[in-house]
Amino acid sequence: MINVAINGYGTIGKRVADAVAAQPDMKVIGVSKTKPSHEAFIAKSRGYPLYIADIAKKAAFEKAGLPVAGAVEDMLKAADIVVDATPGGIGEKNKPVYERLGVKAIWQGGEDHEVAGFSFNSDCNYKDAIGKQFARVVSCNTTGLCRIINAMDKAYGVEKVRAVMVRRGGDPADIKRGPIDAIVLNPVHIPSHHGPDVQSVLPNINIVTQAMIVPVTMMHMHVVQMDLKREATREKVLEIIEKHPRMGLVRKATGITSTAELKEYAMDLGRHRSDLWENGIFEESVSCLRNELYLFQAIHQEADVVVENIDCIRAMTGIEKDPAKSVAITNKALNFIAIQ
Amino acid sequence: MINVAINGYGTIGKRVADAVAAQPDMKVIGVSKTKPSHEAFIAKSRGYPLYIADIAKKAAFEKAGLPVAGAVEDMLKAADIVVDATPGGIGEKNKPVYERLGVKAIWQGGEDHEVAGFSFNSDCNYKDAIGKQFARVVSCNTTGLCRIINAMDKAYGVEKVRAVMVRRGGDPADIKRGPIDAIVLNPVHIPSHHGPDVQSVLPNINIVTQAMIVPVTMMHMHVVQMDLKREATREKVLEIIEKHPRMGLVRKATGITSTAELKEYAMDLGRHRSDLWENGIFEESVSCLRNELYLFQAIHQEADVVVENIDCIRAMTGIEKDPAKSVAITNKALNFIAIQ
Amino acid sequence: MINVAINGYGTIGKRVADAVAAQPDMKVIGVSKTKPSHEAFIAKSRGYPLYIADIAKKAAFEKAGLPVAGAVEDMLKAADIVVDATPGGIGEKNKPVYERLGVKAIWQGGEDHEVAGFSFNSDCNYKDAIGKQFARVVSCNTTGLCRIINAMDKAYGVEKVRAVMVRRGGDPADIKRGPIDAIVLNPVHIPSHHGPDVQSVLPNINIVTQAMIVPVTMMHMHVVQMDLKREATREKVLEIIEKHPRMGLVRKATGITSTAELKEYAMDLGRHRSDLWENGIFEESVSCLRNELYLFQAIHQEADVVVENIDCIRAMTGIEKDPAKSVAITNKALNFIAIQ
Amino acid sequence: MINVAINGYGTIGKRVADAVAAQPDMKVIGVSKTKPSHEAFIAKSRGYPLYIADIAKKAAFEKAGLPVAGAVEDMLKAADIVVDATPGGIGEKNKPVYERLGVKAIWQGGEDHEVAGFSFNSDCNYKDAIGKQFARVVSCNTTGLCRIINAMDKAYGVEKVRAVMVRRGGDPADIKRGPIDAIVLNPVHIPSHHGPDVQSVLPNINIVTQAMIVPVTMMHMHVVQMDLKREATREKVLEIIEKHPRMGLVRKATGITSTAELKEYAMDLGRHRSDLWENGIFEESVSCLRNELYLFQAIHQEADVVVENIDCIRAMTGIEKDPAKSVAITNKALNFIAIQ
Repeated sequence: MINVAINGYGTIGKRVADAVAAQPDMKVIGVSKTKPSHEAFIAKSRGYPLYIADIAKKAAFEKAGLPVAGAVEDMLKAADIVVDATPGGIGEKNKPVYERLGVKAIWQGGEDHEVAGFSFNSDCNYKDAIGKQFARVVSCNTTGLCRIINAMDKAYGVEKVRAVMVRRGGDPADIKRGPIDAIVLNPVHIPSHHGPDVQSVLPNINIVTQAMIVPVTMMHMHVVQMDLKREATREKVLEIIEKHPRMGLVRKATGITSTAELKEYAMDLGRHRSDLWENGIFEESVSCLRNELYLFQAIHQEADVVVENIDCIRAMTGIEKDPAKSVAITNKALNFIAIQ
Repeated sequence: MINVAINGYGTIGKRVADAVAAQPDMKVIGVSKTKPSHEAFIAKSRGYPLYIADIAKKAAFEKAGLPVAGAVEDMLKAADIVVDATPGGIGEKNKPVYERLGVKAIWQGGEDHEVAGFSFNSDCNYKDAIGKQFARVVSCNTTGLCRIINAMDKAYGVEKVRAVMVRRGGDPADIKRGPIDAIVLNPVHIPSHHGPDVQSVLPNINIVTQAMIVPVTMMHMHVVQMDLKREATREKVLEIIEKHPRMGLVRKATGITSTAELKEYAMDLGRHRSDLWENGIFEESVSCLRNELYLFQAIHQEADVVVENIDCIRAMTGIEKDPAKSVAITNKALNFIAIQ
Repeated sequence: MINVAINGYGTIGKRVADAVAAQPDMKVIGVSKTKPSHEAFIAKSRGYPLYIADIAKKAAFEKAGLPVAGAVEDMLKAADIVVDATPGGIGEKNKPVYERLGVKAIWQGGEDHEVAGFSFNSDCNYKDAIGKQFARVVSCNTTGLCRIINAMDKAYGVEKVRAVMVRRGGDPADIKRGPIDAIVLNPVHIPSHHGPDVQSVLPNINIVTQAMIVPVTMMHMHVVQMDLKREATREKVLEIIEKHPRMGLVRKATGITSTAELKEYAMDLGRHRSDLWENGIFEESVSCLRNELYLFQAIHQEADVVVENIDCIRAMTGIEKDPAKSVAITNKALNFIAIQ
Repeated sequence: MINVAINGYGTIGKRVADAVAAQPDMKVIGVSKTKPSHEAFIAKSRGYPLYIADIAKKAAFEKAGLPVAGAVEDMLKAADIVVDATPGGIGEKNKPVYERLGVKAIWQGGEDHEVAGFSFNSDCNYKDAIGKQFARVVSCNTTGLCRIINAMDKAYGVEKVRAVMVRRGGDPADIKRGPIDAIVLNPVHIPSHHGPDVQSVLPNINIVTQAMIVPVTMMHMHVVQMDLKREATREKVLEIIEKHPRMGLVRKATGITSTAELKEYAMDLGRHRSDLWENGIFEESVSCLRNELYLFQAIHQEADVVVENIDCIRAMTGIEKDPAKSVAITNKALNFIAIQ
């Protein structure tokens, strides 16, 4: 039984906590918050011990009806591994304490590769993570790109990737961020950081990415084009996607043409928090023109990295050395059968 | 065991179906669709027999992998009661067949009061529904207004209600409807139809309503002001809300200030489809100025009427004559404890 | 000829500058920016001398092709009056330098009443501004409320005002601010600050306001209800609005039902920057129920205060002591005839 | 003096009318509406004779204060050429009457190429339009693509184009259309119709396009990638764009990174209706990687075709046979100097 601490119980942290709690081989020994919020009440209702960054705020938490188990450092001492899901840039500042306490740590994609020195994706480099003290689970967009690129690379060889990411402006409950009525180039210059980020996992892939932000809250959309080394057929590509445990086909028969309808489908399926942990690849979009492949894939920014964190915990702690087995355990614990 | 048919398996119909299936005293004997869609696949995965409006389309459904149990009329013949959740205006056209077959029917708020001749709210007139062949569950906005107005009327007497409804433009998966960047007066004239609609349930209430539409998908917001016959205290009003089985207080301590955060809270609580069946009344907004009461309440347009439909089924079939007992059974079956 | 400096050449400042430049009795002697931006290029194209807050940045401006006339203090020394249109909260920090240089200054509604000690609206208290060194032009929402409340108070006496403000999330070019898909109570508590702000201009008005923010960029919408001391007729109220130089009727015949269509109408009319300087009162919404008045009015957040600033300049400098004459000169210079 | 009729005085029609009125060699002899609306009042204020589709509605127009000059057919008889700016699909139905009356007609991109049999872009095939009775000005997106592709093809030869269009959901005043919170693949399949549409003007270009719709109102964004036959340098590409009369560079120094800021810039420049008639190419995005070119361009959906319609009128009527001269006259009449 691996003792997992979640440092930062927000959009990603709360999902990782529930995913950990659902696994047969690990448990949540604590989660942390910096201030009282609706999520602290959720932690309480789940029975996750609540640790706080600044113990001086203990009275404020308890006045709000939120028992405090201790300071974050107390939580870290009791943990085999910590999943750091603090906001981007904060995670880096936590590294010295993880080093001092000798606790294993996983950062999220909001941190630079250099913070951990190793960037993880369960498809691509699970075995390289075995025994590591530090790893970074790459961002939602990079995770989604790595899955499809790696699968195509193994099947056909990838000569070049061009990808355009149309990104959500903020998560559903993030009421501060915009834009409200604009398409924002983020960045204006080409390429965006996503290409190099893919290369932190798949160093030999030739990739150019561009990105923009639009006023939606419910998923990113990727326009993916690849030049393959060997010619592919649409049927075979669809088959590869169908068989992949972390990619799903959004079938034409469902009539789904948008991120919003896809989220509704996940909700109707009864998925926990309506989460899509897999790449949502639009069946009808998959097109092979000689050695070129084109497709659209939807990426649920809050969800796809959650299952990667679980696999990363198993790899780093060495409790399971076979990537396929870890993926299978993770998926089974979440009742996760990719949409087809 | 009441046999319930759901005519129209869309936003409301799919929720009513799951709520019926969760009750101890009723079951879903079929749901209907007019064409294959993602929701038809959900019906299949739930095991709800799928009936279709136009039996000539049977081949199209079955080609898509969707077994068809029969025509809608077959479903109606097997039902004790039908919940008509077809789009507004269509329900009325179904009335002759319900009359011909002698099946009890419940319409939704998209139909006029006259279609059923009786408008239902479990708080206000449950007992009047006992034995009726036809009833209409009033719209989400009217349901939300009836709950708080009736509660205040019973406690203090209501002299006058002024309510402003800031409405969502479309449901989350409705990708056709706008607006994108506008506040639309709907209608421009005063009052909106909501006031008279409240009076279809509570005929003695003096109420003026105004309504507009804004580019959000995730809940309506009501600005409610009441002149009360007797002076109220904030503490007592909060207590009445707390004790009500279909109203909940959005506590200040949660830090929630918006519809989006409230939906996130419902999602984090593990509610089925992240639904808020209760009025979400913002604790901090509840204000008593002499005999005036002011408050904000959020209404989840997809959800609050679902539980009303369940109670309406019990009343019309006479299986339970005590409103409080029906409400308690409904809520328990959904693990529904109002947020506090 | 009054020499006017504009400190802060952004959303409001650029409009005030053009409005000043259009007047027969005043001129723009300079505008200020803190960093190069598209607006600095506009200032250059208009021929407004560009002053900068931090003269150390002169090289950066000039490298971008933007000649710098000097530091902000140089501009202030050359001015008879400065319109401070810096972001909310910054204006207050500029007060000591205005005091030291003895320059008259006008702040915007983002500053507190106390900064200037006098809050201005040309309808309500123009004459009180004559000779003052400091004044604050109240915010767009407060300006819009003052106009209609004062007009009704003069005609009928106002017993009580209840107003709900449905506010835009950010200005059209503000790509950082949200929300994207939420109705945000701002604030949750009742009343909002708008009521007291109206009282800074009209101290005897009894008013309760509530406010929320929605994901639109193009105008605020006010839901206004007043209890009048004397009964009013709809016809007479419409006539008062029609005759008012800063209120316009959005005629039913135009088919306009939303903020977006109203902005389009202003654009089609050829208004500079498509601005609506007047309250846009929806004709069809104006309703009199005994001594109660109800109406919807749209307020263009970027525009309605611009004309007030111009009048305030005339009042403070004493160049024109008759409010009606100032309003007429201002409107004429902008070819501003209220929509009817 | 060419007598121009505008059939359909909406988003495009009203802009074409004003552009025609501004030209030295043509005039507006009438515009048409199907029902009273705010735009009919604008036509009246501009002094454009108002014709109506159904003369039986004359009384309704005149009751609203809108004098009617006659039926649409009367207008067509008085015209040398008609610009048909009716909604997509309606234009085709007007063809028989244009044929019967022998009037020259220009359709917009909402109609199929086959309706006119000739698709126009002033850069690409002005001379082919000379003397034609019918032509179609291609859509805003196709126009924007044709401009940049043709310019690069002339300079370097174009081997292949891949373009992704991120489209606005509706025009600013279109309050019915969504989506509100979704990225909609439109279409899901690859390619979208834009590629073949470009080929209706530039038949030899190898192009694959993909398109989606997002909840914005203020411009489309194109992600353009081209494989060139000869290697290009960034400097030379920027120079070609700078010199082009219908393409403009959005300079890095302006700090503009989005469609919304670009529209604000056009507004601040004093452009009529804040229109961008040119492709807005983001300087910082222009990238040459060996023989590959990448760039982002913003396309103002309401505006870029307006100037094309004017040139098309000159070509079809033969009043000016030199494309460069027509473009220069058109631009000069609108005070149109491309942003730089």
